[in-house]
Amino acid sequence: MTPGHAYKAVEVGEDARVIRTRADVARTALEVLTTEGLDALTHAHVAEIAGYSKTTLYTHWPSRVDLFSAALAGLGELQHHERTGDMRTDLVEELKMFRQAVLDLRLDRVLSAMAQWATVDAMRQIRDTLNTEAQRPIRTILEEGFEGAELEAVISMLAGVVACPSLMFGTLPDDDVIEAAVDVVMKSAGGAGRAKRRSAES
Amino acid sequence: MTPGHAYKAVEVGEDARVIRTRADVARTALEVLTTEGLDALTHAHVAEIAGYSKTTLYTHWPSRVDLFSAALAGLGELQHHERTGDMRTDLVEELKMFRQAVLDLRLDRVLSAMAQWATVDAMRQIRDTLNTEAQRPIRTILEEGFEGAELEAVISMLAGVVACPSLMFGTLPDDDVIEAAVDVVMKSAGGAGRAKRRSAES
Repeated sequence: MTPGHAYKAVEVGEDARVIRTRADVARTALEVLTTEGLDALTHAHVAEIAGYSKTTLYTHWPSRVDLFSAALAGLGELQHHERTGDMRTDLVEELKMFRQAVLDLRLDRVLSAMAQWATVDAMRQIRDTLNTEAQRPIRTILEEGFEGAELEAVISMLAGVVACPSLMFGTLPDDDVIEAAVDVVMKSAGGAGRAKRRSAES
Repeated sequence: MTPGHAYKAVEVGEDARVIRTRADVARTALEVLTTEGLDALTHAHVAEIAGYSKTTLYTHWPSRVDLFSAALAGLGELQHHERTGDMRTDLVEELKMFRQAVLDLRLDRVLSAMAQWATVDAMRQIRDTLNTEAQRPIRTILEEGFEGAELEAVISMLAGVVACPSLMFGTLPDDDVIEAAVDVVMKSAGGAGRAKRRSAES
């Protein structure tokens, strides 16, 4: 084994510890954010609950924005529905998963905390990246039937069916409201003009 | 002039002063909220900027929730479009006014501040009342063509066209995105089943 290899083995060991620390702190930071709110998300409080020293937290996450960013990493990969290829089914299932994530992960609190901090440039970038990722599956499904301004409109409209009642009234839509929303969108995806354009492109 | 009348004149004089104080403080509180954020919305800070004593502020608005509520009163009556009776035109104009209000009044910051405070019961009630008021014109227009789950869906969908990009990405939709969204909704309002139901009701 060359010195290079030995060095690499040590690195891997360190990486594993760092990964575990990051995962512990991320989970704790997210828990603090969604149960106690943004004000409670401090290095001292998260360190105490996660069982690490404040020094460790300041080393890995020097600022409160970094700590917030760690909390967002605690969201992990959002669950997405496995696509069936049927647009209506796939949209309904994605929206139901989004609704479940709002409940389980308190995405509404995460989203409003991010909006509050949007004046901080680093925070704005994190927010944009996270929201782009979160919207990707629904965008991919809708790209099959929409384009341009109409595509942007239907993405916001379907996100709004879950996000608006959640942020404006603290409620979530029933299955029949989600299905009604998808059906409204499907009428535009299935129009004659759309079918013609799709066949002209293929 | 009877004593009753004189008493009334004094009352009116007091009312006018109270109304002016309330309006001054409401405007200042809203300005602080949207430019400096929720943390800066304290009795001391608002009193200093508005040019009133802290005592006056505590008398009229004992808690921070009251002060926040004063800020919301500073929004005043949201401008709404005068209805033409044409559903498509009325929806497009309402959404453009909503977009303008997000820009002028920083409704996105107000909304996310309200969402952050939703754990406070009094705050939740204020939020629900305000959002219900804000949605009323668009709900009234949409009630002409929708009902039940579909009505709830299209209200959230159209609110989402403005609110989602604003809260998720700090952007606002172009005219063509707003018009595309309304056109998607109009296709469902104009369906044969809908027309039949409307004629059966009339």
